[in-house]
Amino acid sequence: MIDRDALRDFYDGYYGTLDDVRLDEWPAFFVEDCTYRVIPRENFEAGYTLSTIYAESRGMLIDRVMGVTRTQMYAPRYYRRFPGPLRVVSREADSVRTRHNLLVVQTLTDKQTEIVLSAVCHDTLVQDGDRLRLRERIVVFDSEMIPNSLIYPA
Amino acid sequence: MIDRDALRDFYDGYYGTLDDVRLDEWPAFFVEDCTYRVIPRENFEAGYTLSTIYAESRGMLIDRVMGVTRTQMYAPRYYRRFPGPLRVVSREADSVRTRHNLLVVQTLTDKQTEIVLSAVCHDTLVQDGDRLRLRERIVVFDSEMIPNSLIYPA
Amino acid sequence: MIDRDALRDFYDGYYGTLDDVRLDEWPAFFVEDCTYRVIPRENFEAGYTLSTIYAESRGMLIDRVMGVTRTQMYAPRYYRRFPGPLRVVSREADSVRTRHNLLVVQTLTDKQTEIVLSAVCHDTLVQDGDRLRLRERIVVFDSEMIPNSLIYPA
Repeated sequence: MIDRDALRDFYDGYYGTLDDVRLDEWPAFFVEDCTYRVIPRENFEAGYTLSTIYAESRGMLIDRVMGVTRTQMYAPRYYRRFPGPLRVVSREADSVRTRHNLLVVQTLTDKQTEIVLSAVCHDTLVQDGDRLRLRERIVVFDSEMIPNSLIYPA
Repeated sequence: MIDRDALRDFYDGYYGTLDDVRLDEWPAFFVEDCTYRVIPRENFEAGYTLSTIYAESRGMLIDRVMGVTRTQMYAPRYYRRFPGPLRVVSREADSVRTRHNLLVVQTLTDKQTEIVLSAVCHDTLVQDGDRLRLRERIVVFDSEMIPNSLIYPA
Repeated sequence: MIDRDALRDFYDGYYGTLDDVRLDEWPAFFVEDCTYRVIPRENFEAGYTLSTIYAESRGMLIDRVMGVTRTQMYAPRYYRRFPGPLRVVSREADSVRTRHNLLVVQTLTDKQTEIVLSAVCHDTLVQDGDRLRLRERIVVFDSEMIPNSLIYPA
């Protein structure tokens, strides 16, 4: 039984890890045999699976993090994530499906903060040993542009 | 007795419906004999009732939705709503008054996401048959411009 | 024992007071012998204590409010605060440490709403007589520019 407190703690950890740019800890929030997709809303609503980012194992997420940390961004910047209220969509014996909006803002050193991602996240979480992990995460973003922010995980 | 869980579920449904653009379901979140107002903060704080949008029955909300769905916007866009923490202001025998901030962002297909509404919502909810509904909703927005976003309900 | 409900009520009051610009009530959210700092993220993460704003007593906060209310801004504007989910970092016998993201938006009368602060708040709260108060609040903001919005308290 995965309760509300456990879900809150999970997302506190998940977004805290990303805000603090501890990217090497990010893949451990997923089960080994996971699905992670980032997809434009238009594709998602039309039933297409063509995604901007697609990973189908924790190993692919680890590869992605290694790629990110090697990427040089042209200017120093910070990302900060503002998740909306968490909705529990359904519960099964060993899993729970949730949905929440996500706003990501970016601040360049000497620039005004701006919104770089407006999205809704469709997640499926399971108890995996001693902690909750994502079995599936689909980040559906409102734009058709590929956001720069997606160099980092969402 | 309207508890916190019931309020959370109500707003999850309310904002989920609007984010998903299922506008025909929106009026059912209000009682038949409701008040719905959208008003600039300056007017509200001065005690004026002059509102940008004013409806005093569910029928008027239904009319409004029909008007919206006939309106052609010049470019495809998505709205997404980010409500702030819900404050319970007061409780009476059969109703509860709440207050929360609301941020609405807009994404045009090939543009950066931008904020189109910063507001505080003063709501009164009642148990109406088998579900909660709004008896009153006053959306007080921070600008004096009439936001484009108000073509759609807030 | 400071529970979740008490913390929620505290922050509802804190941010409601600021959103409503009841600045004279703001210092009472702090204990007499408090620390209040606003500091750029780069300084904070490097371990520097050099802060944009630094106060080490409630008296200094009262002075600050008096300064703010005497300051003439060149144009009327509203600020609205959107705190992210509250994380309880640790609990001790008489205090609790929390952390949450904070987005502050500004609306000028005839302009589009814009983000003026993206930050994370590191707070320590204690029971002080009949109410919770902040013993320490450190607002770590993502920019290196001194935000205009900091004329008002965060």
